[in-house]
Amino acid sequence: MYGKVASRLLAAGFEIPAAPIALGAYVPAVRIGDMVFTSGQLPMLGGELLAEGVLGEDVDLELAARCAAQCALNALAAASTVCELERVVGVAKLVGYVASAPGFTAQPAVIDGASAVMREAFGEQGRHAREAVGVAALPLGAPVEVSLTLGLD
Amino acid sequence: MYGKVASRLLAAGFEIPAAPIALGAYVPAVRIGDMVFTSGQLPMLGGELLAEGVLGEDVDLELAARCAAQCALNALAAASTVCELERVVGVAKLVGYVASAPGFTAQPAVIDGASAVMREAFGEQGRHAREAVGVAALPLGAPVEVSLTLGLD
Amino acid sequence: MYGKVASRLLAAGFEIPAAPIALGAYVPAVRIGDMVFTSGQLPMLGGELLAEGVLGEDVDLELAARCAAQCALNALAAASTVCELERVVGVAKLVGYVASAPGFTAQPAVIDGASAVMREAFGEQGRHAREAVGVAALPLGAPVEVSLTLGLD
Repeated sequence: MYGKVASRLLAAGFEIPAAPIALGAYVPAVRIGDMVFTSGQLPMLGGELLAEGVLGEDVDLELAARCAAQCALNALAAASTVCELERVVGVAKLVGYVASAPGFTAQPAVIDGASAVMREAFGEQGRHAREAVGVAALPLGAPVEVSLTLGLD
Repeated sequence: MYGKVASRLLAAGFEIPAAPIALGAYVPAVRIGDMVFTSGQLPMLGGELLAEGVLGEDVDLELAARCAAQCALNALAAASTVCELERVVGVAKLVGYVASAPGFTAQPAVIDGASAVMREAFGEQGRHAREAVGVAALPLGAPVEVSLTLGLD
Repeated sequence: MYGKVASRLLAAGFEIPAAPIALGAYVPAVRIGDMVFTSGQLPMLGGELLAEGVLGEDVDLELAARCAAQCALNALAAASTVCELERVVGVAKLVGYVASAPGFTAQPAVIDGASAVMREAFGEQGRHAREAVGVAALPLGAPVEVSLTLGLD
Protein backbone atom coordinates (compact mmCIF):
# COMPACT_ATOMS: atom_id res chain seq x y z
CA MET A 1 0.00 0.00 0.00
CA TYR A 2 2.73 2.41 1.02
CA GLY A 3 5.30 3.67 -1.45
CA LYS A 4 9.00 3.42 -0.66
CA VAL A 5 9.23 7.02 0.51
CA ALA A 6 6.24 6.74 2.82
CA SER A 7 7.62 3.46 4.23
CA ARG A 8 11.03 4.96 4.94
CA LEU A 9 9.36 7.86 6.74
CA LEU A 10 7.15 5.52 8.77
CA ALA A 11 10.22 3.56 9.88
CA ALA A 12 11.64 6.85 11.17
CA GLY A 13 8.42 7.67 12.99
CA PHE A 14 6.99 10.13 10.46
CA GLU A 15 3.61 9.68 8.76
CA ILE A 16 2.62 11.47 5.57
CA PRO A 17 -1.00 12.51 6.04
CA ALA A 18 -3.79 12.01 3.53
CA ALA A 19 -3.38 14.24 0.52
CA PRO A 20 -5.18 17.55 0.94
CA ILE A 21 -8.09 18.45 -1.32
CA ALA A 22 -7.88 21.46 -3.62
CA LEU A 23 -10.59 23.88 -2.60
CA GLY A 24 -10.13 27.15 -4.45
CA ALA A 25 -8.11 29.06 -6.95
CA TYR A 26 -4.98 27.71 -5.38
CA VAL A 27 -4.04 24.08 -5.00
CA PRO A 28 -1.72 22.01 -2.78
CA ALA A 29 0.87 21.61 -5.54
CA VAL A 30 1.51 22.29 -9.20
CA ARG A 31 3.69 20.36 -11.60
CA ILE A 32 5.39 22.15 -14.48
CA GLY A 33 7.50 19.82 -16.58
CA ASP A 34 9.79 17.94 -14.19
CA MET A 35 9.41 20.42 -11.33
CA VAL A 36 6.86 20.33 -8.51
CA PHE A 37 5.98 23.43 -6.51
CA THR A 38 3.99 23.02 -3.29
CA SER A 39 1.93 25.64 -1.55
CA GLY A 40 3.19 26.83 1.81
CA GLN A 41 2.11 24.25 4.39
CA LEU A 42 1.10 24.85 7.99
CA PRO A 43 1.65 22.38 10.87
CA MET A 44 -1.86 20.92 10.59
CA LEU A 45 -2.42 17.44 12.03
CA GLY A 46 -5.89 15.93 12.02
CA GLY A 47 -7.43 19.25 11.06
CA GLU A 48 -5.80 21.27 13.83
CA LEU A 49 -2.60 23.24 14.24
CA LEU A 50 0.02 21.46 16.34
CA ALA A 51 0.74 24.82 17.96
CA GLU A 52 -0.15 28.49 17.68
CA GLY A 53 2.01 31.45 18.44
CA VAL A 54 5.34 33.09 17.88
CA LEU A 55 8.90 31.95 18.55
CA GLY A 56 10.58 34.00 21.24
CA GLU A 57 7.22 34.55 22.87
CA ASP A 58 4.90 31.61 23.37
CA VAL A 59 6.26 28.64 21.36
CA ASP A 60 9.52 26.94 22.32
CA LEU A 61 12.17 25.58 19.95
CA GLU A 62 11.40 21.91 20.41
CA LEU A 63 7.70 22.29 19.71
CA ALA A 64 8.44 24.57 16.74
CA ALA A 65 10.85 22.01 15.24
CA ARG A 66 8.09 19.39 15.50
CA CYS A 67 5.77 21.84 13.77
CA ALA A 68 8.35 22.28 10.99
CA ALA A 69 8.53 18.50 10.55
CA GLN A 70 4.73 18.34 10.28
CA CYS A 71 4.80 21.15 7.68
CA ALA A 72 7.31 19.12 5.68
CA LEU A 73 5.14 15.97 5.86
CA ASN A 74 2.15 18.02 4.72
CA ALA A 75 4.24 19.39 1.86
CA LEU A 76 5.07 15.84 0.77
CA ALA A 77 1.36 15.02 0.92
CA ALA A 78 0.72 18.09 -1.22
CA ALA A 79 3.39 17.03 -3.72
CA SER A 80 1.87 13.56 -3.91
CA THR A 81 -1.27 15.08 -5.46
CA VAL A 82 0.71 15.76 -8.65
CA CYS A 83 3.52 13.15 -8.70
CA GLU A 84 4.71 9.90 -7.20
CA LEU A 85 7.18 10.67 -4.45
CA GLU A 86 9.35 7.80 -5.72
CA ARG A 87 10.07 9.93 -8.81
CA VAL A 88 11.65 12.75 -6.79
CA VAL A 89 15.36 13.00 -7.64
CA GLY A 90 16.15 16.29 -5.97
CA VAL A 91 14.83 18.85 -3.52
CA ALA A 92 15.61 22.20 -5.12
CA LYS A 93 14.43 24.40 -2.29
CA LEU A 94 12.86 24.23 1.13
CA VAL A 95 11.60 27.61 2.31
CA GLY A 96 10.84 27.89 6.01
CA TYR A 97 9.02 30.89 7.45
CA VAL A 98 9.12 31.12 11.26
CA ALA A 99 6.76 33.51 13.09
CA SER A 100 9.30 35.37 15.20
CA ALA A 101 9.27 38.01 17.90
CA PRO A 102 11.90 40.70 17.34
CA GLY A 103 15.22 39.34 18.56
CA PHE A 104 14.46 35.66 17.94
CA THR A 105 17.22 34.52 15.60
CA ALA A 106 17.28 30.70 15.86
CA GLN A 107 15.15 30.10 12.76
CA PRO A 108 17.64 27.48 11.44
CA ALA A 109 17.12 25.30 14.55
CA VAL A 110 13.37 25.38 13.91
CA ILE A 111 13.61 24.54 10.22
CA ASP A 112 16.04 21.69 10.94
CA GLY A 113 12.85 19.81 11.87
CA ALA A 114 11.71 20.05 8.25
CA SER A 115 15.16 19.29 6.85
CA ALA A 116 15.29 16.06 8.87
CA VAL A 117 12.10 14.88 7.13
CA MET A 118 13.71 15.41 3.72
CA ARG A 119 16.70 13.32 4.76
CA GLU A 120 14.48 10.48 6.00
CA ALA A 121 12.28 10.67 2.91
CA PHE A 122 14.89 10.86 0.18
CA GLY A 123 18.31 10.09 1.69
CA GLU A 124 21.18 11.70 -0.24
CA GLN A 125 18.74 13.05 -2.82
CA GLY A 126 16.95 14.90 -0.04
CA ARG A 127 19.87 17.31 0.45
CA HIS A 128 18.30 20.65 -0.34
CA ALA A 129 18.90 24.36 -0.65
CA ARG A 130 17.07 26.18 2.11
CA GLU A 131 15.85 29.58 3.23
CA ALA A 132 14.97 30.18 6.89
CA VAL A 133 13.53 33.57 7.81
CA GLY A 134 11.64 35.10 10.70
CA VAL A 135 8.33 36.68 9.73
CA ALA A 136 5.87 38.84 11.64
CA ALA A 137 2.88 36.49 11.52
CA LEU A 138 1.56 33.46 9.65
CA PRO A 139 -1.90 32.26 8.58
CA LEU A 140 -4.16 31.09 11.45
CA GLY A 141 -1.43 32.02 13.91
CA ALA A 142 0.79 29.10 12.88
CA PRO A 143 4.38 29.29 14.15
CA VAL A 144 5.88 27.79 10.97
CA GLU A 145 5.13 27.54 7.23
CA VAL A 146 7.17 25.43 4.81
CA SER A 147 7.12 25.05 1.02
CA LEU A 148 9.03 22.68 -1.27
CA THR A 149 10.32 22.83 -4.84
CA LEU A 150 11.09 19.32 -6.09
CA GLY A 151 12.76 17.87 -9.21
CA LEU A 152 11.47 14.66 -10.84
CA ASP A 153 13.38 12.16 -12.97
CA MET B 1 -5.56 44.78 -29.91
CA TYR B 2 -6.06 42.88 -26.67
CA GLY B 3 -4.86 39.31 -26.26
CA LYS B 4 -7.25 36.62 -25.02
CA VAL B 5 -5.97 36.80 -21.45
CA ALA B 6 -6.27 40.57 -21.26
CA SER B 7 -9.79 40.38 -22.75
CA ARG B 8 -10.94 37.78 -20.24
CA LEU B 9 -9.61 39.94 -17.41
CA LEU B 10 -11.32 43.05 -18.79
CA ALA B 11 -14.64 41.19 -18.92
CA ALA B 12 -14.16 40.45 -15.22
CA GLY B 13 -13.38 44.09 -14.47
CA PHE B 14 -9.60 43.76 -14.24
CA GLU B 15 -7.20 45.73 -16.41
CA ILE B 16 -3.58 44.74 -16.97
CA PRO B 17 -1.57 47.98 -16.86
CA ALA B 18 1.05 49.04 -19.36
CA ALA B 19 4.17 46.93 -19.09
CA PRO B 20 6.71 48.44 -16.72
CA ILE B 21 10.07 49.62 -18.02
CA ALA B 22 13.27 48.00 -16.78
CA LEU B 23 15.30 50.65 -15.02
CA GLY B 24 18.25 49.05 -13.32
CA ALA B 25 20.08 45.88 -12.53
CA TYR B 26 16.79 44.18 -11.93
CA VAL B 27 13.95 43.83 -14.37
CA PRO B 28 10.19 43.21 -14.19
CA ALA B 29 10.54 39.58 -15.27
CA VAL B 30 13.06 37.04 -16.54
CA ARG B 31 12.46 34.07 -18.78
CA ILE B 32 14.63 30.96 -18.43
CA GLY B 33 13.65 28.23 -20.85
CA ASP B 34 9.91 27.73 -20.44
CA MET B 35 9.68 29.37 -17.04
CA VAL B 36 8.95 33.03 -16.29
CA PHE B 37 9.90 34.62 -12.97
CA THR B 38 8.48 38.04 -12.11
CA SER B 39 9.85 40.52 -9.65
CA GLY B 40 7.77 41.15 -6.54
CA GLN B 41 5.05 43.63 -7.52
CA LEU B 42 3.52 46.36 -5.39
CA PRO B 43 -0.09 47.60 -5.67
CA MET B 44 0.83 50.52 -7.93
CA LEU B 45 -1.90 52.02 -10.09
CA GLY B 46 -1.20 55.04 -12.27
CA GLY B 47 2.12 55.59 -10.54
CA GLU B 48 0.75 55.54 -6.99
CA LEU B 49 0.19 52.92 -4.32
CA LEU B 50 -3.47 51.95 -3.91
CA ALA B 51 -2.85 51.97 -0.17
CA GLU B 52 -0.07 52.32 2.37
CA GLY B 53 0.18 50.68 5.72
CA VAL B 54 -0.01 47.46 7.64
CA LEU B 55 -2.77 44.90 8.06
CA GLY B 56 -4.11 44.77 11.60
CA GLU B 57 -3.27 48.43 11.99
CA ASP B 58 -4.28 50.87 9.28
CA VAL B 59 -5.37 48.87 6.21
CA ASP B 60 -8.52 46.74 6.23
CA LEU B 61 -9.01 43.35 4.61
CA GLU B 62 -11.15 44.50 1.71
CA LEU B 63 -8.72 47.21 0.64
CA ALA B 64 -5.78 44.85 1.06
CA ALA B 65 -7.43 42.21 -1.13
CA ARG B 66 -7.89 44.84 -3.83
CA CYS B 67 -4.23 45.70 -3.44
CA ALA B 68 -3.33 42.03 -3.87
CA ALA B 69 -5.38 41.92 -7.07
CA GLN B 70 -3.54 44.97 -8.37
CA CYS B 71 -0.20 43.35 -7.52
CA ALA B 72 -1.27 40.30 -9.54
CA LEU B 73 -2.26 42.46 -12.52
CA ASN B 74 1.10 44.22 -12.32
CA ALA B 75 2.82 40.83 -12.19
CA LEU B 76 1.03 39.82 -15.39
CA ALA B 77 2.16 43.08 -16.98
CA ALA B 78 5.70 42.26 -15.84
CA ALA B 79 5.47 38.75 -17.30
CA SER B 80 4.22 40.18 -20.60
CA THR B 81 7.60 41.88 -21.06
CA VAL B 82 9.19 38.47 -21.68
CA CYS B 83 6.36 36.26 -23.04
CA GLU B 84 2.88 36.30 -24.52
CA LEU B 85 0.39 35.62 -21.74
CA GLU B 86 -1.50 33.32 -24.14
CA ARG B 87 1.46 30.91 -23.89
CA VAL B 88 1.08 30.45 -20.13
CA VAL B 89 0.07 26.85 -19.39
CA GLY B 90 0.59 26.84 -15.65
CA VAL B 91 1.12 29.07 -12.65
CA ALA B 92 3.79 27.32 -10.61
CA LYS B 93 3.79 29.66 -7.66
CA LEU B 94 2.19 32.82 -6.38
CA VAL B 95 4.02 34.27 -3.38
CA GLY B 96 2.11 36.87 -1.39
CA TYR B 97 3.80 38.95 1.29
CA VAL B 98 1.41 40.88 3.55
CA ALA B 99 2.73 43.67 5.79
CA SER B 100 1.27 42.53 9.10
CA ALA B 101 1.08 43.81 12.65
CA PRO B 102 1.85 41.10 15.21
CA GLY B 103 -1.30 39.05 15.69
CA PHE B 104 -2.74 39.62 12.20
CA THR B 105 -3.17 36.12 10.77
CA ALA B 106 -5.64 36.49 7.89
CA GLN B 107 -2.96 36.67 5.18
CA PRO B 108 -4.84 34.07 3.05
CA ALA B 109 -7.93 36.30 2.84
CA VAL B 110 -5.72 39.12 1.54
CA ILE B 111 -3.93 37.01 -1.04
CA ASP B 112 -7.23 35.55 -2.28
CA GLY B 113 -7.47 38.87 -4.14
CA ALA B 114 -4.43 37.88 -6.22
CA SER B 115 -5.57 34.28 -6.65
CA ALA B 116 -8.87 35.49 -8.11
CA VAL B 117 -6.96 37.34 -10.84
CA MET B 118 -5.15 34.12 -11.80
CA ARG B 119 -8.48 32.31 -12.11
CA GLU B 120 -9.93 35.04 -14.32
CA ALA B 121 -6.79 35.24 -16.43
CA PHE B 122 -6.08 31.57 -17.02
CA GLY B 123 -9.13 29.54 -15.90
CA GLU B 124 -8.23 25.98 -14.89
CA GLN B 125 -4.61 26.57 -15.86
CA GLY B 126 -4.50 29.43 -13.37
CA ARG B 127 -4.74 27.05 -10.39
CA HIS B 128 -1.50 27.69 -8.56
CA ALA B 129 0.63 26.77 -5.59
CA ARG B 130 0.75 29.65 -3.14
CA GLU B 131 2.62 31.04 -0.16
CA ALA B 132 0.98 33.69 2.04
CA VAL B 133 3.07 35.15 4.85
CA GLY B 134 2.98 38.17 7.12
CA VAL B 135 6.08 40.34 6.96
CA ALA B 136 7.27 43.28 9.05
CA ALA B 137 7.32 45.90 6.30
CA LEU B 138 7.36 46.23 2.51
CA PRO B 139 8.95 48.68 0.05
CA LEU B 140 7.40 52.18 0.03
CA GLY B 141 5.07 51.13 2.84
CA ALA B 142 2.99 48.92 0.54
CA PRO B 143 0.62 46.55 2.35
CA VAL B 144 1.11 43.71 -0.15
CA GLU B 145 3.75 42.36 -2.55
CA VAL B 146 3.12 39.50 -4.99
CA SER B 147 5.41 37.56 -7.34
CA LEU B 148 4.60 34.88 -9.94
CA THR B 149 6.43 31.89 -11.39
CA LEU B 150 4.81 30.82 -14.66
CA GLY B 151 5.21 27.87 -17.02
CA LEU B 152 4.97 28.32 -20.81
CA ASP B 153 3.97 25.75 -23.46
CA MET C 1 43.32 30.40 -11.59
CA TYR C 2 40.29 32.68 -11.52
CA GLY C 3 37.35 32.12 -13.82
CA LYS C 4 36.04 35.00 -15.94
CA VAL C 5 33.21 35.79 -13.55
CA ALA C 6 35.48 35.88 -10.50
CA SER C 7 37.97 38.07 -12.40
CA ARG C 8 35.29 40.56 -13.45
CA LEU C 9 34.13 40.80 -9.84
CA LEU C 10 37.68 41.28 -8.56
CA ALA C 11 38.18 44.13 -11.02
CA ALA C 12 35.11 45.77 -9.49
CA GLY C 13 36.40 45.24 -5.97
CA PHE C 14 34.32 42.19 -5.09
CA GLU C 15 35.80 38.87 -4.04
CA ILE C 16 33.89 35.59 -4.13
CA PRO C 17 34.83 33.72 -0.94
CA ALA C 18 35.88 30.09 -0.73
CA ALA C 19 32.98 27.77 -1.42
CA PRO C 20 31.14 26.81 1.75
CA ILE C 21 31.13 23.20 2.93
CA ALA C 22 27.88 21.28 3.17
CA LEU C 23 27.36 20.34 6.78
CA GLY C 24 23.94 18.84 7.22
CA ALA C 25 20.69 17.91 5.58
CA TYR C 26 20.80 21.13 3.65
CA VAL C 27 23.52 22.25 1.28
CA PRO C 28 24.77 25.56 -0.15
CA ALA C 29 23.15 24.93 -3.53
CA VAL C 30 21.29 22.33 -5.55
CA ARG C 31 21.27 21.85 -9.30
CA ILE C 32 18.18 20.43 -11.00
CA GLY C 33 18.61 20.18 -14.76
CA ASP C 34 19.76 23.58 -15.96
CA MET C 35 18.63 25.46 -12.87
CA VAL C 36 20.65 26.20 -9.74
CA PHE C 37 18.98 27.06 -6.44
CA THR C 38 21.13 28.48 -3.62
CA SER C 39 20.35 28.46 0.06
CA GLY C 40 19.66 31.80 1.67
CA GLN C 41 23.03 33.41 2.39
CA LEU C 42 23.97 35.64 5.29
CA PRO C 43 26.59 38.45 5.16
CA MET C 44 29.37 36.25 6.53
CA LEU C 45 32.96 37.29 5.82
CA GLY C 46 35.86 35.34 7.27
CA GLY C 47 33.49 33.42 9.54
CA GLU C 48 31.77 36.45 11.03
CA LEU C 49 28.74 38.53 10.22
CA LEU C 50 29.60 41.93 8.66
CA ALA C 51 26.87 43.40 10.86
CA GLU C 52 24.12 42.38 13.25
CA GLY C 53 20.82 44.08 13.80
CA VAL C 54 17.74 45.50 12.21
CA LEU C 55 17.22 48.23 9.63
CA GLY C 56 15.44 51.25 11.06
CA GLU C 57 16.98 50.50 14.44
CA ASP C 58 20.69 49.73 14.65
CA VAL C 59 22.01 49.14 11.11
CA ASP C 60 22.20 51.97 8.57
CA LEU C 61 21.46 51.75 4.85
CA GLU C 62 25.03 51.93 3.64
CA LEU C 63 26.23 49.12 5.89
CA ALA C 64 23.18 47.04 5.03
CA ALA C 65 23.80 47.47 1.30
CA ARG C 66 27.36 46.21 1.83
CA CYS C 67 25.90 43.27 3.72
CA ALA C 68 23.58 42.55 0.79
CA ALA C 69 26.57 42.58 -1.58
CA GLN C 70 28.39 40.11 0.67
CA CYS C 71 25.30 37.87 0.73
CA ALA C 72 25.31 37.92 -3.07
CA LEU C 73 29.01 36.99 -3.23
CA ASN C 74 28.36 34.15 -0.80
CA ALA C 75 25.45 33.02 -2.96
CA LEU C 76 27.78 32.89 -5.98
CA ALA C 77 30.24 30.85 -3.91
CA ALA C 78 27.37 28.54 -3.01
CA ALA C 79 26.33 28.20 -6.66
CA SER C 80 29.91 27.40 -7.61
CA THR C 81 29.68 24.18 -5.59
CA VAL C 82 27.32 22.76 -8.23
CA CYS C 83 28.20 24.58 -11.49
CA GLU C 84 30.80 26.72 -13.19
CA LEU C 85 29.73 30.34 -12.92
CA GLU C 86 30.80 30.83 -16.56
CA ARG C 87 27.84 28.65 -17.55
CA VAL C 88 25.27 30.99 -16.00
CA VAL C 89 23.11 32.51 -18.75
CA GLY C 90 20.42 34.07 -16.60
CA VAL C 91 19.53 35.05 -13.06
CA ALA C 92 15.92 34.00 -12.67
CA LYS C 93 15.38 35.40 -9.20
CA LEU C 94 17.18 37.22 -6.42
CA VAL C 95 15.23 37.16 -3.16
CA GLY C 96 16.36 39.65 -0.53
CA TYR C 97 15.07 39.51 3.03
CA VAL C 98 15.85 42.59 5.14
CA ALA C 99 15.43 42.48 8.94
CA SER C 100 13.25 45.54 9.39
CA ALA C 101 11.77 47.50 12.27
CA PRO C 102 8.13 48.42 11.67
CA GLY C 103 8.06 51.49 9.44
CA PHE C 104 11.35 50.79 7.64
CA THR C 105 10.40 50.64 3.96
CA ALA C 106 13.66 51.16 2.04
CA GLN C 107 14.30 47.45 1.45
CA PRO C 108 15.01 48.09 -2.28
CA ALA C 109 17.92 50.40 -1.45
CA VAL C 110 19.43 47.66 0.72
CA ILE C 111 19.01 44.92 -1.87
CA ASP C 112 20.49 47.15 -4.59
CA GLY C 113 23.81 46.11 -3.00
CA ALA C 114 23.16 42.53 -4.09
CA SER C 115 21.82 43.52 -7.49
CA ALA C 116 25.03 45.43 -8.21
CA VAL C 117 27.04 42.25 -7.69
CA MET C 118 24.91 40.43 -10.28
CA ARG C 119 25.57 43.20 -12.80
CA GLU C 120 29.31 43.07 -12.20
CA ALA C 121 29.37 39.28 -12.32
CA PHE C 122 27.24 38.62 -15.39
CA GLY C 123 26.71 41.94 -17.22
CA GLU C 124 23.50 41.98 -19.27
CA GLN C 125 22.80 38.37 -18.34
CA GLY C 126 22.83 39.39 -14.70
CA ARG C 127 19.57 41.35 -15.07
CA HIS C 128 17.26 39.54 -12.68
CA ALA C 129 13.78 39.39 -11.26
CA ARG C 130 13.83 40.37 -7.61
CA GLU C 131 11.84 40.29 -4.39
CA ALA C 132 12.74 42.65 -1.54
CA VAL C 133 10.80 42.29 1.69
CA GLY C 134 11.16 43.35 5.30
CA VAL C 135 11.12 40.50 7.79
CA ALA C 136 10.96 40.40 11.59
CA ALA C 137 14.30 38.70 12.22
CA LEU C 138 16.97 36.62 10.47
CA PRO C 139 19.29 33.80 11.53
CA LEU C 140 22.10 34.84 13.92
CA GLY C 141 20.71 38.37 13.94
CA ALA C 142 21.87 39.07 10.39
CA PRO C 143 20.38 42.20 8.81
CA VAL C 144 20.08 40.66 5.33
CA GLU C 145 19.64 37.25 3.69
CA VAL C 146 19.82 36.68 -0.09
CA SER C 147 19.12 33.64 -2.27
CA LEU C 148 19.61 33.13 -6.01
CA THR C 149 17.93 31.04 -8.69
CA LEU C 150 20.19 30.74 -11.75
CA GLY C 151 19.78 29.36 -15.26
CA LEU C 152 22.64 27.52 -17.02
CA ASP C 153 23.30 27.16 -20.74
